[in-house]
Amino acid sequence: MEGAYLDHASATPVRKEVLEAMLPYFSAQFANPSNVYDLGTKIKETIEEARSNVASLINADPAQIVFTSSGAEANNLAIKGVAFARQKKGNHVIVSSIEHHSVLNSARFLERLDFEATFLPVDKYGLVDPARLAKAIRPETVIVSIMHANTEIGTIEPISELAEICKERDVAFHTDAVASVGNTPVDVHALNVDLLSLSGAALGAPKGVGALYFNKKIRLMPLIHGGIQENGRRAGTENVPGIIGFGMAAALAKKELPKRIDHVRKLRDRLVEGILKKVEKVTYTGHPEKRLPGHASFCFEAIEGEALIFMLVQNGIYTNTGSACASKALKISPVLGAIGLRADLAQGSTVFTIDAANSEAEIDYVLEKLPPVVDRLRSLSPIWGKEIPEYESDACEH
Amino acid sequence: MEGAYLDHASATPVRKEVLEAMLPYFSAQFANPSNVYDLGTKIKETIEEARSNVASLINADPAQIVFTSSGAEANNLAIKGVAFARQKKGNHVIVSSIEHHSVLNSARFLERLDFEATFLPVDKYGLVDPARLAKAIRPETVIVSIMHANTEIGTIEPISELAEICKERDVAFHTDAVASVGNTPVDVHALNVDLLSLSGAALGAPKGVGALYFNKKIRLMPLIHGGIQENGRRAGTENVPGIIGFGMAAALAKKELPKRIDHVRKLRDRLVEGILKKVEKVTYTGHPEKRLPGHASFCFEAIEGEALIFMLVQNGIYTNTGSACASKALKISPVLGAIGLRADLAQGSTVFTIDAANSEAEIDYVLEKLPPVVDRLRSLSPIWGKEIPEYESDACEH
Repeated sequence: MEGAYLDHASATPVRKEVLEAMLPYFSAQFANPSNVYDLGTKIKETIEEARSNVASLINADPAQIVFTSSGAEANNLAIKGVAFARQKKGNHVIVSSIEHHSVLNSARFLERLDFEATFLPVDKYGLVDPARLAKAIRPETVIVSIMHANTEIGTIEPISELAEICKERDVAFHTDAVASVGNTPVDVHALNVDLLSLSGAALGAPKGVGALYFNKKIRLMPLIHGGIQENGRRAGTENVPGIIGFGMAAALAKKELPKRIDHVRKLRDRLVEGILKKVEKVTYTGHPEKRLPGHASFCFEAIEGEALIFMLVQNGIYTNTGSACASKALKISPVLGAIGLRADLAQGSTVFTIDAANSEAEIDYVLEKLPPVVDRLRSLSPIWGKEIPEYESDACEH
Repeated sequence: MEGAYLDHASATPVRKEVLEAMLPYFSAQFANPSNVYDLGTKIKETIEEARSNVASLINADPAQIVFTSSGAEANNLAIKGVAFARQKKGNHVIVSSIEHHSVLNSARFLERLDFEATFLPVDKYGLVDPARLAKAIRPETVIVSIMHANTEIGTIEPISELAEICKERDVAFHTDAVASVGNTPVDVHALNVDLLSLSGAALGAPKGVGALYFNKKIRLMPLIHGGIQENGRRAGTENVPGIIGFGMAAALAKKELPKRIDHVRKLRDRLVEGILKKVEKVTYTGHPEKRLPGHASFCFEAIEGEALIFMLVQNGIYTNTGSACASKALKISPVLGAIGLRADLAQGSTVFTIDAANSEAEIDYVLEKLPPVVDRLRSLSPIWGKEIPEYESDACEH
């Protein structure tokens, strides 16, 4: 069957070169990298090469990278790690209201432990207002976490500006860059951040490996306590094959980034233009320009996102309706709520995430199959045809 | 070169069947198991099969298994997870003084957060005394963690008896079974435990995957907050290939356990008998009978463990000098300190961990190469030949 996989933000295949790089580390070179003898020290060296490649992708120093098991773990480590390490300074954390669940729920966990959390509102594009952040910071604020790019609506936040506000006030600044690393240039110095999370799986490494960049001045309480792996910042025997794969994926991502951006942006623009032309009453969510190049997100009026996804799957087209890990948990995406989108419109959320492997032919295939599917679903909808504004309000308070 | 790898407790190769089971899940079946569409739901089903196999190995219900990234993470999740969930009940935790660093340092982390921790002493075999545990429990005790078997000295603790004492007092009981699962029968009901940690890597699954068993009555605060993966108990996209590999390794381990025990015990007994016969002034550490069948640990008088290890490596023999993750961090093992072993003797610690793949010929090879190596090192030692008792005392207080 013809088709198009356009859900790369939720998963992407492991790249051939990556798997090849990993394979020797399952059985032939299996030793524990903490061992003092040759079998172990050789593997430790290979881990350090992978660390260099991951660091290089984001213009960091290898000593500033700690490997984790996922982007979610990196987010937890950043927020809880700084909060626990700095609790003598204060007990207040700030996150935006459109963060990944791993950030939101880390902040909520801290609230249960005598910390206070502020969930910053965003505008209708999902942007955090720097002036609003400045006002939210208190003397007892220890960390601010605002994502680089949002998985659901693609919007890229003004990170360097937000980070500067924090730097001036001696507040640690973390950004979740899981959605952006490999999709858009990410430079920890240009972004001016103290901590940055990334995920291997997003780059074509296997699931089960992520990393946290941290500025060396930042004190970090480990999330997983134990042995001295990762310089005492993350215990547990290293996921050697995963880390080796992550290193290879990072090296490839760095090399291919400019070409990739160019390719996916063209396809994305073709998709967006086609949908807006062929389908009426559709809202292109997120910021029109300040967004990930391979990311297109829509809300189709009078359509239930999950129904649309299932109809598209029947045509071999794979898309998403919000963030992957929330898809089973929630009826309406909190991100779309936070940008003030009408609840019934938010239910029609559909996210396309495009990869280097996608082709123009696939986009054209989607543009052929999508409009009749939308028409059919709307013909069954009791609310189709009613006049209602797209957004409840321009900016929403919490 | 002839040789023998006898450091299976620190790492063991991924089994052929395990890697074969994993391979399709890197690239061909790469979707996110949280996705609502067919590609994702199929993978979710395979994860559930793996969960059943892991549960079956320890006689648990699949719904009582949460996958983690390592045994260390499982230990952190158990201790912190119960402590945070039960903090209204109390703020006291108890662990033995010979626990893995991931248990000891989780307890120390809680001490920084207004919890109190008791580190229970052990006798010269490393055994925890049930009467002493009973005395240490306070009304505010929320969890006790005592390992099933110790990696460094092989001793198996009287878990069901210790767990019963906790059950009677409404205290959660956790055991770190990373060293025992796959090496000796482990049945969560027979052991009577509320929580039990295990590691995939110990069974011939790849590094990067572990699991925590939990009794359904136990409330557990997640360690990694975020999405609803693992029924909300552990966020982050699942390490799909790792989990599939863990499932296969668990199924094989269950099938092969009786034969394996028989095989490694014979080799171990041959090794112990040979060493005690051929080498003078050597202490067989840990309990002589209540110990892992494939585990032999010694302290050679007047020898530095690391020097012995390097000399053995020159003969292709791989062993360990204490727990893998501590080998670079510490000069003298805290486990050997806790059993009251003389400091200079403890420095001569050498641990042999035997696997199904090892042969009688390999043991004989070790018995041929080890004694002259010991002789050579002793000939260089300034303390060799002096008379000193093996243990400082029979039981040691903290």
